[in-house]
Amino acid sequence: MSTTPAHTKGLQDVVAGESSICWIDGHAGILCYRGIDIHDLAEKSTFEEVCYLLWYGKLPTAAELKGLHAAMAAERKLDPAVIALLKGCPKSATPMEVLRTTVSALSMYDADSLLLKDHAANLRKAIRITSQMAMIVAYFDRIRKGKDLPAPDASLSHAGNFLWMLNGEKPSATATQAMDIALILHADHELNASTFAARVIAATESDMHSAVTGAIGALKGPLHGGANEAVMKILFAIDKAGADPVAYVKDMLAQGKKVPGFGHRVYTTEDPRATHLRRMSHDLGVKDNKPKWYDMSHAIEDFMNKENPKKKLNANVDFYSASVYTTLGIDIDLFTPIFGVSRISGWAAHIIEQHDDNRLIRPRADYIGPKHPAPYVPIAGRG
Amino acid sequence: MSTTPAHTKGLQDVVAGESSICWIDGHAGILCYRGIDIHDLAEKSTFEEVCYLLWYGKLPTAAELKGLHAAMAAERKLDPAVIALLKGCPKSATPMEVLRTTVSALSMYDADSLLLKDHAANLRKAIRITSQMAMIVAYFDRIRKGKDLPAPDASLSHAGNFLWMLNGEKPSATATQAMDIALILHADHELNASTFAARVIAATESDMHSAVTGAIGALKGPLHGGANEAVMKILFAIDKAGADPVAYVKDMLAQGKKVPGFGHRVYTTEDPRATHLRRMSHDLGVKDNKPKWYDMSHAIEDFMNKENPKKKLNANVDFYSASVYTTLGIDIDLFTPIFGVSRISGWAAHIIEQHDDNRLIRPRADYIGPKHPAPYVPIAGRG
Repeated sequence: MSTTPAHTKGLQDVVAGESSICWIDGHAGILCYRGIDIHDLAEKSTFEEVCYLLWYGKLPTAAELKGLHAAMAAERKLDPAVIALLKGCPKSATPMEVLRTTVSALSMYDADSLLLKDHAANLRKAIRITSQMAMIVAYFDRIRKGKDLPAPDASLSHAGNFLWMLNGEKPSATATQAMDIALILHADHELNASTFAARVIAATESDMHSAVTGAIGALKGPLHGGANEAVMKILFAIDKAGADPVAYVKDMLAQGKKVPGFGHRVYTTEDPRATHLRRMSHDLGVKDNKPKWYDMSHAIEDFMNKENPKKKLNANVDFYSASVYTTLGIDIDLFTPIFGVSRISGWAAHIIEQHDDNRLIRPRADYIGPKHPAPYVPIAGRG
Repeated sequence: MSTTPAHTKGLQDVVAGESSICWIDGHAGILCYRGIDIHDLAEKSTFEEVCYLLWYGKLPTAAELKGLHAAMAAERKLDPAVIALLKGCPKSATPMEVLRTTVSALSMYDADSLLLKDHAANLRKAIRITSQMAMIVAYFDRIRKGKDLPAPDASLSHAGNFLWMLNGEKPSATATQAMDIALILHADHELNASTFAARVIAATESDMHSAVTGAIGALKGPLHGGANEAVMKILFAIDKAGADPVAYVKDMLAQGKKVPGFGHRVYTTEDPRATHLRRMSHDLGVKDNKPKWYDMSHAIEDFMNKENPKKKLNANVDFYSASVYTTLGIDIDLFTPIFGVSRISGWAAHIIEQHDDNRLIRPRADYIGPKHPAPYVPIAGRG
């Protein structure tokens, strides 16, 4: 077997292929989509503009952006069978199971489902699945709460329409901006586990729905999505106990526990995404006179920074997204689905890139099992 | 970025991790599960025995095998909601979309769904999903043909019960043996694309249903499953045209076409799995007085062997499985789902192995995109 002898567990630092989508410099704290710095995108663009950038490889002109907005708004529809599927899910089903199952079902109602790797069809599917995933998450939450299903509003942005469908009331400008920035910041992160899963699936020349369904399954894992949920559980626990946030976290550290929302496998300096979520957490708190979650988060971050003078454990993307989403009135078990509502933009870009210049992704394993050939002992002789 | 500079496209020959499940020597034509040669397993064991071997790491005693058979038979049940989901799929839905969606839905009715990586729960899920996938494929086919849904028969083996549920009549001993051997031969093949996808998903500590759903999505791709379907389409075309099989294939080669069912990325000698499917194709044809598909296949193989004196293009696992399945009366669009009905055994073994000693699988990409940071040009200034 002429395989590369050395390997690193989990393919850490192994280059799995070429990509022109995302650049991360973990030491310098730089994240770029298609070469454009995430700070510029968070401050100056919209989620639709970022989708255009990821899918078409360049920033859109005004006409192109208008066209994409119209196309995304036109795809805000779910087949009645998909809504029936959502309504039929048992009460005990978790949001990520429901999202995985309904996104898989979408392909059965997709006019392009037989075009497995066609570039133009993939772009249509990227738009369609992005619009549909936001609807599925919002409607899932409305259905489980026994609420009505607001019709999508084509006049609203993707972020604004998502909040409208989720809450049944038109969102404030600050709320829309907070959600828009959260969607921009989570849109892509190179070959993270869900994106890599999507590319492995797409590389068999399977269709985008298959790849996205697999990616949702990967995002469901606690080592991938879920950290902001853990952050919020701690904030809730502090609030419920009426505890001092710093004393609470000090106590966690004394017990040898990790504080979720700090540190990142790739970033050794500040996660550039944290900057913008910190600001939105602050602005939302002030705007809505609900600064509690921001204040608590900020106190914890200050303490953590003092505890870690070498700055190895910085607040990451998850830390402030917890208070942002909670201040927006979103249930914590929707945090990971909303990660998916954003990351679909990056998944789609990677699937298209994989399909456009494909090779099957098929590594080898280092065999450490029983010596072979082991004898086949007849059943009567087995101990 | 301290990544390994060199990479091979598609991770070809890159070792992605350790595994004690499957040994392949492509040059010697050896395939072993847990050290036991596939020839021994195909000739002497059953699919249930192979499941035991893959999941528990050793061949079972008579009592252990009896226990596994009983456990698998007891799990031959689908929640009414899953049957309703199968019945509700549109007529245009392809079998692999339906399989992916219904297997994803299974987790919502699984008592162990919240135990994401627990070893004992994973073993229960392995048994359950293996039993359920066979039912889903059989019932899907019955439903689309407007037929009744036969109740599973606990007295039958996994292969026999599958044929019973699919055809609504008790299968002959030869038919059961042919299906059993096909299931054994397809059970595992190291880090093939679907298994690797399953491991990438499982490595986020996501659950077995997520990993299997992703694997089904990967298997759906034409570069993975689907080759035996392509073989059968050619046999049908030859039959319909009343053509000479050798002349037909000669003509394909003259046109520069590849003949499906010959050659394999890993094997440079005979695919050891082909041996047993050739024999079953022959035996089934003789037994049922329908030697047409075997005879045609054999003529093509003889010709291909003469054309390729260096034996670089040997019949692979797909070549004779086509005639086996067709002689068993199975529709060609079920060939890939049946691959899944078998491969679930290997997927489950790999997911359990991943969960038991886990590390997130997260490679890096070689960035070839626009120079960064590229300027963020305001929208009015974009060309």
